[in-house]
Amino acid sequence: MAGTGAFADIFDGDAYKYYSDGEWKKSSSGKTVAIINPTTRKTQYKVQACTQEEVNKVMDLAKTAQKSWAKTPLWKRAELLHKAAAILKEHKAPIAECLVKEIAKPAKDSVTEVVRSGDLVSYCAEEGVRILGEGKFLVSDSFPGNERTKYCLTSKVPLGVILAIPPFNYPVNLAVSKIAPALIAGNSLVLKPPTQGAVSCLHMVHCFHLAGFPKGLISCVTGKGSEIGDFLTMHPGVNCISFTGGDTGIAISKKAGMIPLQMELGGKDACIVLEDADLDLVASNIIKGGFSYSGQRCTAVKVVLVMESVADALVEKVKAKVAKLTVGAPEDDSDITPVVSESSANFIEGLVKDAKEKGATFCQEYKREGNLIWPLLLDNVRPDMRIAWEEPFGPVLPVIRINSIEEGIHHCNASNFGLQGCVFTKDVNKAILISDAMETGTVQINSAPARGPDHFPFQGLKDSGIGSQGVTNSINMMTKIKTTVINLPTPSYTMG
Amino acid sequence: MAGTGAFADIFDGDAYKYYSDGEWKKSSSGKTVAIINPTTRKTQYKVQACTQEEVNKVMDLAKTAQKSWAKTPLWKRAELLHKAAAILKEHKAPIAECLVKEIAKPAKDSVTEVVRSGDLVSYCAEEGVRILGEGKFLVSDSFPGNERTKYCLTSKVPLGVILAIPPFNYPVNLAVSKIAPALIAGNSLVLKPPTQGAVSCLHMVHCFHLAGFPKGLISCVTGKGSEIGDFLTMHPGVNCISFTGGDTGIAISKKAGMIPLQMELGGKDACIVLEDADLDLVASNIIKGGFSYSGQRCTAVKVVLVMESVADALVEKVKAKVAKLTVGAPEDDSDITPVVSESSANFIEGLVKDAKEKGATFCQEYKREGNLIWPLLLDNVRPDMRIAWEEPFGPVLPVIRINSIEEGIHHCNASNFGLQGCVFTKDVNKAILISDAMETGTVQINSAPARGPDHFPFQGLKDSGIGSQGVTNSINMMTKIKTTVINLPTPSYTMG
Amino acid sequence: MAGTGAFADIFDGDAYKYYSDGEWKKSSSGKTVAIINPTTRKTQYKVQACTQEEVNKVMDLAKTAQKSWAKTPLWKRAELLHKAAAILKEHKAPIAECLVKEIAKPAKDSVTEVVRSGDLVSYCAEEGVRILGEGKFLVSDSFPGNERTKYCLTSKVPLGVILAIPPFNYPVNLAVSKIAPALIAGNSLVLKPPTQGAVSCLHMVHCFHLAGFPKGLISCVTGKGSEIGDFLTMHPGVNCISFTGGDTGIAISKKAGMIPLQMELGGKDACIVLEDADLDLVASNIIKGGFSYSGQRCTAVKVVLVMESVADALVEKVKAKVAKLTVGAPEDDSDITPVVSESSANFIEGLVKDAKEKGATFCQEYKREGNLIWPLLLDNVRPDMRIAWEEPFGPVLPVIRINSIEEGIHHCNASNFGLQGCVFTKDVNKAILISDAMETGTVQINSAPARGPDHFPFQGLKDSGIGSQGVTNSINMMTKIKTTVINLPTPSYTMG
Amino acid sequence: MAGTGAFADIFDGDAYKYYSDGEWKKSSSGKTVAIINPTTRKTQYKVQACTQEEVNKVMDLAKTAQKSWAKTPLWKRAELLHKAAAILKEHKAPIAECLVKEIAKPAKDSVTEVVRSGDLVSYCAEEGVRILGEGKFLVSDSFPGNERTKYCLTSKVPLGVILAIPPFNYPVNLAVSKIAPALIAGNSLVLKPPTQGAVSCLHMVHCFHLAGFPKGLISCVTGKGSEIGDFLTMHPGVNCISFTGGDTGIAISKKAGMIPLQMELGGKDACIVLEDADLDLVASNIIKGGFSYSGQRCTAVKVVLVMESVADALVEKVKAKVAKLTVGAPEDDSDITPVVSESSANFIEGLVKDAKEKGATFCQEYKREGNLIWPLLLDNVRPDMRIAWEEPFGPVLPVIRINSIEEGIHHCNASNFGLQGCVFTKDVNKAILISDAMETGTVQINSAPARGPDHFPFQGLKDSGIGSQGVTNSINMMTKIKTTVINLPTPSYTMG
Repeated sequence: MAGTGAFADIFDGDAYKYYSDGEWKKSSSGKTVAIINPTTRKTQYKVQACTQEEVNKVMDLAKTAQKSWAKTPLWKRAELLHKAAAILKEHKAPIAECLVKEIAKPAKDSVTEVVRSGDLVSYCAEEGVRILGEGKFLVSDSFPGNERTKYCLTSKVPLGVILAIPPFNYPVNLAVSKIAPALIAGNSLVLKPPTQGAVSCLHMVHCFHLAGFPKGLISCVTGKGSEIGDFLTMHPGVNCISFTGGDTGIAISKKAGMIPLQMELGGKDACIVLEDADLDLVASNIIKGGFSYSGQRCTAVKVVLVMESVADALVEKVKAKVAKLTVGAPEDDSDITPVVSESSANFIEGLVKDAKEKGATFCQEYKREGNLIWPLLLDNVRPDMRIAWEEPFGPVLPVIRINSIEEGIHHCNASNFGLQGCVFTKDVNKAILISDAMETGTVQINSAPARGPDHFPFQGLKDSGIGSQGVTNSINMMTKIKTTVINLPTPSYTMG
Repeated sequence: MAGTGAFADIFDGDAYKYYSDGEWKKSSSGKTVAIINPTTRKTQYKVQACTQEEVNKVMDLAKTAQKSWAKTPLWKRAELLHKAAAILKEHKAPIAECLVKEIAKPAKDSVTEVVRSGDLVSYCAEEGVRILGEGKFLVSDSFPGNERTKYCLTSKVPLGVILAIPPFNYPVNLAVSKIAPALIAGNSLVLKPPTQGAVSCLHMVHCFHLAGFPKGLISCVTGKGSEIGDFLTMHPGVNCISFTGGDTGIAISKKAGMIPLQMELGGKDACIVLEDADLDLVASNIIKGGFSYSGQRCTAVKVVLVMESVADALVEKVKAKVAKLTVGAPEDDSDITPVVSESSANFIEGLVKDAKEKGATFCQEYKREGNLIWPLLLDNVRPDMRIAWEEPFGPVLPVIRINSIEEGIHHCNASNFGLQGCVFTKDVNKAILISDAMETGTVQINSAPARGPDHFPFQGLKDSGIGSQGVTNSINMMTKIKTTVINLPTPSYTMG
Repeated sequence: MAGTGAFADIFDGDAYKYYSDGEWKKSSSGKTVAIINPTTRKTQYKVQACTQEEVNKVMDLAKTAQKSWAKTPLWKRAELLHKAAAILKEHKAPIAECLVKEIAKPAKDSVTEVVRSGDLVSYCAEEGVRILGEGKFLVSDSFPGNERTKYCLTSKVPLGVILAIPPFNYPVNLAVSKIAPALIAGNSLVLKPPTQGAVSCLHMVHCFHLAGFPKGLISCVTGKGSEIGDFLTMHPGVNCISFTGGDTGIAISKKAGMIPLQMELGGKDACIVLEDADLDLVASNIIKGGFSYSGQRCTAVKVVLVMESVADALVEKVKAKVAKLTVGAPEDDSDITPVVSESSANFIEGLVKDAKEKGATFCQEYKREGNLIWPLLLDNVRPDMRIAWEEPFGPVLPVIRINSIEEGIHHCNASNFGLQGCVFTKDVNKAILISDAMETGTVQINSAPARGPDHFPFQGLKDSGIGSQGVTNSINMMTKIKTTVINLPTPSYTMG
Repeated sequence: MAGTGAFADIFDGDAYKYYSDGEWKKSSSGKTVAIINPTTRKTQYKVQACTQEEVNKVMDLAKTAQKSWAKTPLWKRAELLHKAAAILKEHKAPIAECLVKEIAKPAKDSVTEVVRSGDLVSYCAEEGVRILGEGKFLVSDSFPGNERTKYCLTSKVPLGVILAIPPFNYPVNLAVSKIAPALIAGNSLVLKPPTQGAVSCLHMVHCFHLAGFPKGLISCVTGKGSEIGDFLTMHPGVNCISFTGGDTGIAISKKAGMIPLQMELGGKDACIVLEDADLDLVASNIIKGGFSYSGQRCTAVKVVLVMESVADALVEKVKAKVAKLTVGAPEDDSDITPVVSESSANFIEGLVKDAKEKGATFCQEYKREGNLIWPLLLDNVRPDMRIAWEEPFGPVLPVIRINSIEEGIHHCNASNFGLQGCVFTKDVNKAILISDAMETGTVQINSAPARGPDHFPFQGLKDSGIGSQGVTNSINMMTKIKTTVINLPTPSYTMG
């Protein structure tokens, strides 16, 4: 159970502690931040409201710890990560429990998130051994005018201190997808969890603690954004920010100093459906893509662009499947669970009402109880409706009927987002020509958008982010290049 | 004109000379080998019948020249290759003339071969600068139990002397596709041209001579296979053989010593046509793929495997296009020209007669004059006919009607060849599943097999060859790895 | 001659024009900016003071032009760049003339800069063909739990509009090192030249114009920083900034939006000299490294850290060489020429005086006439002097005597800069251990710091910059990743 | 204990069985081959004398098993290999016992061999997941004249059936270094162990059996070379041979068909010692490099080339260390143990006597008892002695005194071998110039030759082999390339 057993150290009976210098601590602020359970709408947990001084301390420790961690053999770094992965999987139950309570994620999916996170940590460990263990060896005589007198060795060296800020929807998975690359690459890591999801993160961090990483290498600070938000992101001790979330990321980018940024900020993933598509396949992908975790996913299908001639048939198929979705509490593994907060539910409702007023066809009746919103398919959505462009992050999905492929591509590319998109067609040529034309970080041919498998590159274009993620790219992103040039007195060519 | 002007040095008025030690020479054998014009069936040219002593001399020179060439800056090697490429393109006319006379290649295609060869040389030069100029820099602590005390630098070093043996059908292009990679990688090169095509090769080699490569680095010996064939391929001075041709390659492989081999030995490229294919596209690809240069191409379509339901329609479309093919002399740019030799024509005729006897349907009347064979489509070919499995290397193309995709894949994979294959379908899933299932070096989706573009990998599986070609792969293949390990007294980690 | 002949179009008899929409134009502002010749300290040239509206126009054009340029075959992009490179080299004389007049670069070095720039453009073209032409093909079953049902193709796609801001010291070379990577990668380019160096840049841009690039793809705007500086760097149409210069870069980083940044901002390159070093080699490298172009180079040797036991001997050798440096006008190919501006000369003088007051030993008498400062070696510099840490960007070089290797490394790493450094020692172990310990982007073993050869990675750590340059890295940096995932209905494994 | 407990199935009480079709079997020949313990010179074990029919059966099974193994997800292949590695390490004791008895390897080193082999298997598994899971994605418009209409996907596909033939000296390690790459790459594997070492191999194979690999995928046949040696290496079912051993490899190369070969055939690794070398470091490396496992290592130091001026000092230091080597039984962990066979001991004695007769200085008295030869350093060896060029594979080490670096390099390069070499010098320039000049697969700077760490490339040049080993290179070598080209009807450029 959360906060007990192996996790007893992280809880003081009232609030969860923060993690600094290899120890679980209470903040000197004496204050806590409450975490509201989206289902009960009552306070479920409390976490420390850390102070700026505590942040400064954590940064100092991170800087020092990093220097010696960068001198640890790669295989030893990997060994510790494998250990953490095993501990994480072993303790999947209490961590999943937190996910259920904090973010109303269905129980089974919560377990899956933890297990998949363990796999990710292990995969990162092995990938990093290879990425960090190999540089280039360049010679000078490639470039016109040069003899071979210079041998250049390129290394990938750690950036230093990485600030990781995951979002509420996958607080464990999107935290470890930043932590594991950072660590294997020789960096230290400061984690600022989302408020909703903070306790899950603290449990996860404890698994790294139990694995035996050096003191100060990993820290986790909780608190109010107003107190430590900008303070963290503008902190001179931070050498890289890896952020997943919403618009805040753009603001962070504008304020951050001259450091590498990895941002993934949501999207408005379009699903283009052509006339020759397998409509059953499309319908099941729309359900999975649009309604999983109540649509609270960056890569959810967020607008369906379907050719008029097959639109009726498709909408019927989707409606039939929506009717089968269960709605209720995450503890019951309901398909649709309460959205993360009341403000989120209100925002969704705003989009729905706007669409209603402007004439969208509701395939189901709109229904809401507290944070719980019943799944809703909106047909005949038009570009003048907000929901055609905005991201509901909830179980409501607009359908726009199109009359040409170009119209679909145009709508997709007119968005300020560019995360993923998908196209359903049997035709090999159309599949490729359309995916080439869609200006998003990824285009899925004949499947819903998806972040995984985790070793695939994952990136948002335009306002959807900067940098590419996925195991390999995240590790590379968390390193910089250093070169050593050996200058010889006379040209030398390797003979054999 | 061939053998005159800039090429006067390579011709003594009667026979073409061979190239050794940077000079054009007559063989001490006093003998020549006649080259028969396939169209006139009369002797067109004579080349030197080199002796084994002359081969020995060439090998000695190649070994010495290679050592100092390997110490030439990469950009200077590239500069010389660019120069050779420019000279080659400048002299496309006389070289193309030789191709027309020696191998009966249509005039325009002959010019194209020379120009494309120049492009290939330049592309190789730039590619090689990059491949040879970059090695890996590895550290020891990737592997369990090791501290970072060993820095390993890997270099690509030349193999030494490369023996290049191109085939008659692209004597210039398939010679430079071996010469250019060999040279940019720091090797020396001994060329043994095919008899038919030898004079084209000698002209091409002269372009390299004019570019100013060091003496002995490139040699070209002509002569009888019985005298210098095995002598060359089993010569202890040879460090690598790059061969394109027929079965001989397998025999060479069995006799060659412990040296890298690059072999491309022909194929029986299948064209699988599904029911949903664009039949006009298929038909034009079959014409281009099956009848270009009278079918004398490794990557020619050599058997059509078409679904019964669309077979009639496809055969009609192909027939209509065959009817439009012009037949005659290469000087007139006829589509179909005489095949390379009488023995080749006889072999083709043997396959045709066997098919006739066993009941194949002839879509055109079989017609032959000397080496000139009229284009022939054979429908209803069955697996018991030789032409279902053997490579005609002529303008005759069998069609086998299939009743399932599996039947098509099975026929393709039952062949002892595995060069290329193609599949025509609009369906993205079928296209990929079938291409994955076809056990050939390359599968073309919705186009005829093709060697190019020249930077794509190109390889035959099973009896179709060993090693992969294409600019990048050929350069890599003509190098070997050497490593230097710097052992440090204490662990050292690169900081930054 | 500058502004005449082939360059007549870019000059209106009084002022140089700016380049927009494929044409040379006068600004609607009716104003110009004067460029002062550092030698004469009089106005040498005038350039347009462009308006914000003109910048907006240029951005719009760049966005449109980029879309179709991104659809141009790679080899065609390369062909145009090769053409521009040839034109640039052909016109080296008038461009070098501008460099002499604008930035007082010695005449021969000015010619070298132009020629080297041409080589860089060509090298970029070929490198880019390869980088852009190759992505990865990933399969899903690498990651635990996945079957092989997903094929992922990764492409490198252009970023969009690149803003290039080169510095005064290599205005042509450091402009093309941004322009060529940007263009071959499919981007459009807006150039904001430094005031000093603007006319050289305009001539260089005209060579690209003459090569025939599409209208709007390349633009060059000149003007006052106060008017268009921040306006450019914060412009929403800019998708990437590549900047070389001073501290301004840090300010730009803080204001720029969520876009990739490539910054190279100077350094304080240390030269660590051990007891076993070849002192003649060191001395000649200090002269070349410290005094070339009067020390106005990012990678100049900016502080010598020499072991006490060999310090006297080294200082003597350097003094002897300093005595031979010629001082005077760039037109006479003097070794030491006037520094770029009076304010720069004043800043240098400030550092010198501070050192004098705090007790540094002057190896030569300090001498200045206008912007011309005589070369000066300052021995016995101590950490409390400003010149121990600040970058003079002039012909004055501090020597700090050290008593241990650790002291040298400590001084190097205590700097807020981290561009390059060098270490002189014969010992293989010390060479590597020290270069690993120095926290700079590059460490040169036994040679002065150097940017080139241009295909080597080049990067500054800490306040010296962000991102890595060099041909390959710059091209990669100017692309982003896009992935296409083909989802199959059943697992498929490639057989062969 | 060997042949008992978990290994009971592999032993019938009298002889060890062979492994075919996932089962342990007795040969239908009814015959066995005796394995002589080098220490006792008595029969220690018996293994099956398999028949050609049994080999044929194994080949058939291997071919079938490979096809479905090639369709197994990469992570599942890796999972099985990790399991086998764990089982191998768990059973290190009985396997090490076999090594002690069969090849007289010191007890501790025998355990190390097994543990290191387990690490290698795991490392291969993870490396292979990455190598096999990533191909290239190429586009056509890189090459002049092409539009972007062709998308080329390159895959690495398994070769088919790999024949692995390890040598006696590391029968377990050099078997798994072939087995693990073969399996992760999707191949099946037929193992022919050396006679001495066969029982160790059978135990190791049983660990793979216990891990649960599919039937027929791995086989192990034992027997007489005269019966099944050539039969195996020339078998048409074999798609690749990976051989480590002696001259036999060259003979195999000449007889083998058109298949990839990986050969590592011994060497005559030179140790060049310069005047500035750290002689203590050299001496300890000569002892470790020359006398470990009684010199029976491919990468043993096999000739010392020392500058005359430091030769006396070095010889003294080595002598002092030789005096401390313990000589005796492997069970006692003696440094020097009996060589593998009487014929080997006789061969070594022949080299020693030849050197004696020709005037070499013996630093110790020559002493032999049975197969046990006392360690011997031979000073003043000259090029006319056999031991200057031949490989003793025993604890006898020649020292040649040289008067120049060139003389050392010349001796090294005059050898027909080219495996590794080493150079001892403190000088960074000499270290690199000499290592570049030595024509061997690897040059170690300031350390004895060594195969590991196992992820470093490892290769012999000239008669020392063909192909490169090391985890990465072996996996790559056991694959071939297949390409799929998607041909589009119109050019398409990926936008983003």
